[in-house]
Amino acid sequence: MDIKHKLTVELGARSYPIYIGTGLLGQAPLLGPHIKGRSALIVSNTTVAPLYLAAVQQALDAGTTRHDSVILDDGEQFKTMASVESIIETLLQRRHDRRSTVIALGGGVVGDIAGFAASIYQRGVNFVQIPTTLLSQVDSSVGGKTGVNHPLGKNMIGAFYQPQCVIADIGTLGTLPARELSAGLAEVVKYGLIYDAEFFAWLEQNIDALKAGDTNLLAEAVLVSCRIKARVVELDEREAGLRAILNLGHTFGHAIETAMGYGNWLHGEAVAAGMMMAIDLSLREGWIDESVRSRASALLQRAGLPVAPPADMTTRQFLDVMAIDKKAVDGSIKLVLLRALGEAFVSADYDQDKLLQTLN
Amino acid sequence: MDIKHKLTVELGARSYPIYIGTGLLGQAPLLGPHIKGRSALIVSNTTVAPLYLAAVQQALDAGTTRHDSVILDDGEQFKTMASVESIIETLLQRRHDRRSTVIALGGGVVGDIAGFAASIYQRGVNFVQIPTTLLSQVDSSVGGKTGVNHPLGKNMIGAFYQPQCVIADIGTLGTLPARELSAGLAEVVKYGLIYDAEFFAWLEQNIDALKAGDTNLLAEAVLVSCRIKARVVELDEREAGLRAILNLGHTFGHAIETAMGYGNWLHGEAVAAGMMMAIDLSLREGWIDESVRSRASALLQRAGLPVAPPADMTTRQFLDVMAIDKKAVDGSIKLVLLRALGEAFVSADYDQDKLLQTLN
Repeated sequence: MDIKHKLTVELGARSYPIYIGTGLLGQAPLLGPHIKGRSALIVSNTTVAPLYLAAVQQALDAGTTRHDSVILDDGEQFKTMASVESIIETLLQRRHDRRSTVIALGGGVVGDIAGFAASIYQRGVNFVQIPTTLLSQVDSSVGGKTGVNHPLGKNMIGAFYQPQCVIADIGTLGTLPARELSAGLAEVVKYGLIYDAEFFAWLEQNIDALKAGDTNLLAEAVLVSCRIKARVVELDEREAGLRAILNLGHTFGHAIETAMGYGNWLHGEAVAAGMMMAIDLSLREGWIDESVRSRASALLQRAGLPVAPPADMTTRQFLDVMAIDKKAVDGSIKLVLLRALGEAFVSADYDQDKLLQTLN
Repeated sequence: MDIKHKLTVELGARSYPIYIGTGLLGQAPLLGPHIKGRSALIVSNTTVAPLYLAAVQQALDAGTTRHDSVILDDGEQFKTMASVESIIETLLQRRHDRRSTVIALGGGVVGDIAGFAASIYQRGVNFVQIPTTLLSQVDSSVGGKTGVNHPLGKNMIGAFYQPQCVIADIGTLGTLPARELSAGLAEVVKYGLIYDAEFFAWLEQNIDALKAGDTNLLAEAVLVSCRIKARVVELDEREAGLRAILNLGHTFGHAIETAMGYGNWLHGEAVAAGMMMAIDLSLREGWIDESVRSRASALLQRAGLPVAPPADMTTRQFLDVMAIDKKAVDGSIKLVLLRALGEAFVSADYDQDKLLQTLN
């Protein structure tokens, strides 16, 4: 077990640690202190379970924690209430009480589903995140957003629910398909764009090694990403304002995911294209200069990501979905835009014509 | 509009007022300040909507709040995820955004369903309680417990979610069937038993007038009940300990409701029988004397309530359901018991044989 970094998300009584390193999976001394009660339910999927389920089960056995598991089908299209209900059914059938711990072992979809199930089972049980994808390690496992999709909109059903701890084992990224590693890098690049121009420059230097899977560099990228996310979440846990900057590219990205059908574009891919649209609008407004666009586009492409939406997607499709996006407040569409590299802000005060130009 | 009493549930940033009086329904000046955003969704049921929906709609019209409604079937058997999903479907179809307000207009079932839907729609929207039954005015509308039943257990899916305000219009009790008024009185008697011997004595004096619908006495009973509940919830919002005393009779009661099928015994009726079982066990343990049992039994009977479980219910049925009750922690069944009239405590430290005698 090599814990390279540890940081804490400071949320008062709901504070929790994030462990980043290698060989962390299946370590009873690390996991044990975060298990309450005598039973746990591991939620994973058909891709991740064959690789890592046994290790987590062994860690629980070592702590004499009774455990069950629910193995979901793999994919965003299974991020539904039906999956949540299958978890709750198992918790009830196996008589898990309110001190039981739900453990999410997998990517962002597994974490979102398992976290939401944990938040509503018996009005909330303990929850541990073991993210196994880069995207979930840098984004979805931190900050307490949980939930599922509805046919009429992404993430429309959910809760803010913080885990007991996050165990980010960089070793799991070795088995991650290249396309998913790239999707995770989209969110890493996002942190540079919205909050930290120096980190953006560091990514420009190291993107090839990151894409090739360099463990130490990945651990550092996860650390900086989680640190930025933690800072923003600490200031605005329930997204009354600031936290929305974490959604750079997500309003456009959600529209892409919805229009293409969940699961066809990876979330990170849609966010990459969406971020370029937000940058395009920011540029049209004259808030940033062309160099930001070209640098962002070059970095995302080197990371293996799309920098434009699907060619056949219409302006109408964007507007239809965006009108019920959660960022829509009282009818006007708020967007996350850039006023400089490393500085994002939320605004509904942009030129509607320029938005239409961007969508075209 | 006659606001007879106002009290505040003190929960820091989540504090909210409870208004108790007559003619409160449909008063825009009362409701308006608690509506955020420009839209609201009223959730009611087929019994309550014909009586009071129009009044609430008029209050919203006066404040130029766009509104929709979902009318559920009436009954505990509809307290399901399917009802929650029908509310969320309407919120999405009618494009309610995250500043929308969900208004519960009805009894405890409507409040529990609507509150849970509000808590998970877009990870939480504003919520207003307008309870129209005595049971919901004195119990379920206050304290933030929301949720639905699962075929394997009552209230197994839910959230702690506080409303913006509670509007308890005593006038609505005039249209309440006598059986439901009695069911509400069970919870009123509970507050005397667990917390306030003087209030219990006051109830002994006034039970006939309360049962006959005396408005001023009912307003006072609601006030004292809400005050006790607020105090307990303020000390222990998420039921880490103390709050559990509010569940006097509920573990036995849930078992009765589950065994008989939801909706056949009213919740308050099951709680009344359950409280007598808790008192029986407390008496067998020697913690209280026979006078507490005889006074509780007499008061509950005068309130029109059962004081024993269904004759055909077996010990086995009780134990099966109680083992997955939320009060079961790590396998041992904690129960709320009395050590005196007006003083409840939570314990797993009772004689198992005496429990079996009580169940027999």
